[in-house]
Amino acid sequence: MEQHLEPGREDILKAAQRIQPYIHRTPVMTCSAIDNLAGASIYFKCENLQKAGAFKSRGATNAVFSIDPYDLKQGVATHSSGNHAAALARAAHLKNIPAYIVMPENSSKVKIAAVKTYGGKISFCTPTLEAREEKLNEVLNETNAFEIHPYNNFSVIAGQATAALEFTEDQPGLDVLIVPVGGGGLLSGTALAVHYFSPSTKVIAAEPSGADDAYQSFYQKRLIPSLNPNTIADGLLTSLGTLTFPIIRRLVNDIVTVNDQATMEAMKLVWERMKIIIEPSSAVALAMVLRHKQRFAGQKIGIIISGGNVDLMHLPWL
Amino acid sequence: MEQHLEPGREDILKAAQRIQPYIHRTPVMTCSAIDNLAGASIYFKCENLQKAGAFKSRGATNAVFSIDPYDLKQGVATHSSGNHAAALARAAHLKNIPAYIVMPENSSKVKIAAVKTYGGKISFCTPTLEAREEKLNEVLNETNAFEIHPYNNFSVIAGQATAALEFTEDQPGLDVLIVPVGGGGLLSGTALAVHYFSPSTKVIAAEPSGADDAYQSFYQKRLIPSLNPNTIADGLLTSLGTLTFPIIRRLVNDIVTVNDQATMEAMKLVWERMKIIIEPSSAVALAMVLRHKQRFAGQKIGIIISGGNVDLMHLPWL
Repeated sequence: MEQHLEPGREDILKAAQRIQPYIHRTPVMTCSAIDNLAGASIYFKCENLQKAGAFKSRGATNAVFSIDPYDLKQGVATHSSGNHAAALARAAHLKNIPAYIVMPENSSKVKIAAVKTYGGKISFCTPTLEAREEKLNEVLNETNAFEIHPYNNFSVIAGQATAALEFTEDQPGLDVLIVPVGGGGLLSGTALAVHYFSPSTKVIAAEPSGADDAYQSFYQKRLIPSLNPNTIADGLLTSLGTLTFPIIRRLVNDIVTVNDQATMEAMKLVWERMKIIIEPSSAVALAMVLRHKQRFAGQKIGIIISGGNVDLMHLPWL
Repeated sequence: MEQHLEPGREDILKAAQRIQPYIHRTPVMTCSAIDNLAGASIYFKCENLQKAGAFKSRGATNAVFSIDPYDLKQGVATHSSGNHAAALARAAHLKNIPAYIVMPENSSKVKIAAVKTYGGKISFCTPTLEAREEKLNEVLNETNAFEIHPYNNFSVIAGQATAALEFTEDQPGLDVLIVPVGGGGLLSGTALAVHYFSPSTKVIAAEPSGADDAYQSFYQKRLIPSLNPNTIADGLLTSLGTLTFPIIRRLVNDIVTVNDQATMEAMKLVWERMKIIIEPSSAVALAMVLRHKQRFAGQKIGIIISGGNVDLMHLPWL
């Protein structure tokens, strides 16, 4: 059954059980060099090592596997330039139903290839939100597919919450858990999971200063859309949603912005010292910690590395 | 005590116990996309996630912690442009003794920085083997430090053997274990560990065709030095040693060469699909498997990812 209510404790536990056969329980890594630099103990939950290279596999899989099969007979559809596209294509492939993906024509070749790998049927559109929504409506009308929004969907949010659930199980006693925020699917899911399973842990979001709609919305207490966002963190361009914002407003402790230069340096630091590939959107959280060392000194910090899908032909420092 | 004999079963077990507090038991990873491509089941032992970013920490640590403390009073020394330099500096730092490292003046900034991080004292020389040996002799005379050769040393070989020991414990029943070969420290250690702990597993080495001294030596049954090696696998430029070659000749099943183009493609494939940073030298083994799919079809293959120290400013595909 589709969820029509904000995910509760049981919904998150059920989501974890439902998707468990199809996703990785990702490892938690540490790095003494980065700990020394930060003056804190940082635990990284490596969703870059998740199926399809990002936490998005959790939400997409939970949605596809929890929605009434009758509604899914004609397949699923979404518009996404990024990780949700590949994750949804993969989840649909597991269910043996078609996935219709609307992608902006300037999407990176790597992301287009990933969607194709999982058998996703791609329709291209011009790279504006308007064109994306228009094209998606066309596709929905033609195919009768079921729309799975990248974040403004409670089944998706419950799925994303399972990353923090695993994290609090594997690394109890975190003082703070920090995640990046774009549309807020990961952030709202994390806030719910922490609320139910590790209530003494604070949840803080890190956001690029060039796409700070979540920061603005959080402090102005109303949904302010992202206008002309500009950041290397290509997974964080979207605006908060009507379902994610109320959860974030209620359960998140703070949202802190960080500039792209710091994000790029943090990304390179992780590649160099931890030998794992993380995408710019994932580096925002560490960048924020390193810019606010006093605030986090001596704490036990959890960071969810959201994904590792990078176009290796275009690295931000080259 | 220093080892003067080829490491036996007990020496490898003792090495594992000795270095255990100072190194990571690295994870074994798999990748379904790469398995599909290879038509085989490949298990990757991730020594790129090892301390100092390479398996070299095993051998260097075992040497420093097994040699008579009296001999080490004045510190240790080596010449190395790469991972052994950082590994030895780190091991010496753990023992609180100085490490004198002779490095060619064209060594990458990243590798120089790594040695400095661990407090190594660097002397630069011109980038020829002659100049390196000459400079090292000067340093040894001045300091009375104890030389720890990167591979032609039985304590180092016993240390490197512990990677394959862990691998055969964590992933029993491998049909074949494949490692890259440069000086032969990892290869001879792997061959010994497999001989003692998983005798039904074959050991095969992969070598760049532009630095094929091990292949030549193996098939001509005499030590043939590497002359003007030319490969992107910068960790595999050195020639087999007088201690490593006899072990390799006796216990290794085959040595197969592979060209740099295939190595570069395999490296990029691992970065893209596994989201881990591996250095060119580590990609040689997977490249070889992908070039010989018929030979390995359906097998359970182990590959030791030797290291992840890459200059991120200069990637081979850019």
